[in-house]
Amino acid sequence: MEQKRLGRQTVALARPPVLTGWAGVAGKKEGEGPLAAQFHYVSQDDSFGEKSWEKAESAMQRMALSAALDQAGRTASELDYALAGDLLNQCISSSFALRGQEVPFYGLYGACSTMAESLSLAALLLDGGFGARAAAVTSSHFCSAERQYRTPLEYGSQRTPTAQWTVTGAGAVVLETEGAGPRVTHVTTGKIVDKGVKDPANMGAAMAPAAYDTIRAHLAETGRKPSFYDLIVTGDLGELGREIVLDFFHRDGVELKNLSDCGLLVYDLERQDVHCGGSGCGCSAVALTSLFLPGLKQGRWKHILFCGTGALLSPTSTQQGESIPGICHAVALEGPA
Amino acid sequence: MEQKRLGRQTVALARPPVLTGWAGVAGKKEGEGPLAAQFHYVSQDDSFGEKSWEKAESAMQRMALSAALDQAGRTASELDYALAGDLLNQCISSSFALRGQEVPFYGLYGACSTMAESLSLAALLLDGGFGARAAAVTSSHFCSAERQYRTPLEYGSQRTPTAQWTVTGAGAVVLETEGAGPRVTHVTTGKIVDKGVKDPANMGAAMAPAAYDTIRAHLAETGRKPSFYDLIVTGDLGELGREIVLDFFHRDGVELKNLSDCGLLVYDLERQDVHCGGSGCGCSAVALTSLFLPGLKQGRWKHILFCGTGALLSPTSTQQGESIPGICHAVALEGPA
Repeated sequence: MEQKRLGRQTVALARPPVLTGWAGVAGKKEGEGPLAAQFHYVSQDDSFGEKSWEKAESAMQRMALSAALDQAGRTASELDYALAGDLLNQCISSSFALRGQEVPFYGLYGACSTMAESLSLAALLLDGGFGARAAAVTSSHFCSAERQYRTPLEYGSQRTPTAQWTVTGAGAVVLETEGAGPRVTHVTTGKIVDKGVKDPANMGAAMAPAAYDTIRAHLAETGRKPSFYDLIVTGDLGELGREIVLDFFHRDGVELKNLSDCGLLVYDLERQDVHCGGSGCGCSAVALTSLFLPGLKQGRWKHILFCGTGALLSPTSTQQGESIPGICHAVALEGPA
Repeated sequence: MEQKRLGRQTVALARPPVLTGWAGVAGKKEGEGPLAAQFHYVSQDDSFGEKSWEKAESAMQRMALSAALDQAGRTASELDYALAGDLLNQCISSSFALRGQEVPFYGLYGACSTMAESLSLAALLLDGGFGARAAAVTSSHFCSAERQYRTPLEYGSQRTPTAQWTVTGAGAVVLETEGAGPRVTHVTTGKIVDKGVKDPANMGAAMAPAAYDTIRAHLAETGRKPSFYDLIVTGDLGELGREIVLDFFHRDGVELKNLSDCGLLVYDLERQDVHCGGSGCGCSAVALTSLFLPGLKQGRWKHILFCGTGALLSPTSTQQGESIPGICHAVALEGPA
């Protein structure tokens, strides 16, 4: 058998799966941001026609999956696996979105790293020879997240300067063993990293050490220089978290000039009052499906290292005085052959 | 490449991974039940020396993983992957248990099917050639689950007759590509099945259709008769859920004489006042690690179909009038060669 494992965290895929379809669905605020023109669908009503924010989030996932399947020219019945997760308690957005699709399903919890986690596992399952097609799906919704994690919207709470804004959005990608499109060539699985940050309004700082850890491992284990990638992009570290990662690399004598963050790409930070940037599973999901994958397909970029970042806390863990464990999964994407 | 996929949901592993270490850790009530003598560790104090039930649950996971690694003669640094999940919001038992282990980690959410889901994905990752060793871990705790899903213990709420009792317990298994021990030969991935049951105090009935669906798919796709297995065992359907599965098969003209349920094995239903039986991620996890794997190793059984069952609801989905989506993942286990 071919040697796939390059090091402690990274595997090179022997038969890189192809991304044949993708779609990003977003809410009103996101539809007023820099990615507006690229979303598959933007709702002017964040309820998406549903009776609760939670049901709206499920509706977004279903729309994204359906559109991604359309682009791939496939139906749900042709999927061998669907992998999905979200931020809601017991991941109900995903379970209720995938209910009725009749697809073998694995539920994930990776907080805001879920797009990268689901993409990683989908790619590994296809490369492992277990199926020909898989979907990776995730979502977040500002209103369901605020209600669950912080305070009901009606309270009109003041936000701290380090806070980020949960993206109302969903992303879905379809991977296949055959076809044309961008490919997943490497998967670097994250370890849980916790440097003791306890402020749930500063999750960029909590996740930055995990992002540094995974990106460093990926570069060391693949032997690639940062400049190999047109973009190294983290999930939702925001302004502050990105600076911390840059600082960590700077101390190693590495200037990560091509480091970007989805949290800084989804909104116009000057104009949209989102403090440190976007966050949530939907943040990296809509950036992947509406910016990076189209850009790879069109030849704007050739290599992107997509690094989903997640803060593995809960309101209960914070109430009990715990610090915030972070994780980051990296997926190396390459333009069409 | 060899053909691994047998049908819509089932794959046959080309190089069946070996279970080289396992351990079940349980609470006081479980330690007074039929499996008492087989647990790796039973605490007389359900706090496990921690200051909260949530921290106690994490402590159980760490103990189970540590003991499973000991049995395998391995350390955490030798694991290529750890896969874990639990019932708590944002799966904090798992994240905080795996924090500090320095292991590439994928978080899962499969509700009470998590032992089977983590075992499935761990086996697939090894069979796919992505690593040599992986761990699958899960837990549940009666007190953290009651507080989160139902009412605080202090209220002393009356339980309905169809209710089940969340097992205080954790299980961990170590899988390797080489070694001696029981093996994972097939993985049948569940689809989400929802037949409209809305009563969260009757989760056996909600999950039974998913169990039927997956077991039927497994048998059809492998061409195996039910009698091929010494035991076909569901996760935590309890008395009522098990009867529903038997009834579904009976209508198909199949008598599933060897169908058992972990929820009926962990407690003495006559003596321990648990109504319909045990439930929770820990239920099938302690039955797997303390009964089935030792029994396979000792030759008591040769083939077991281990079917984790999960109810993918949340308190919020129930409050919003939703029915309960169920899922069941099946793993075919075979005694040492």
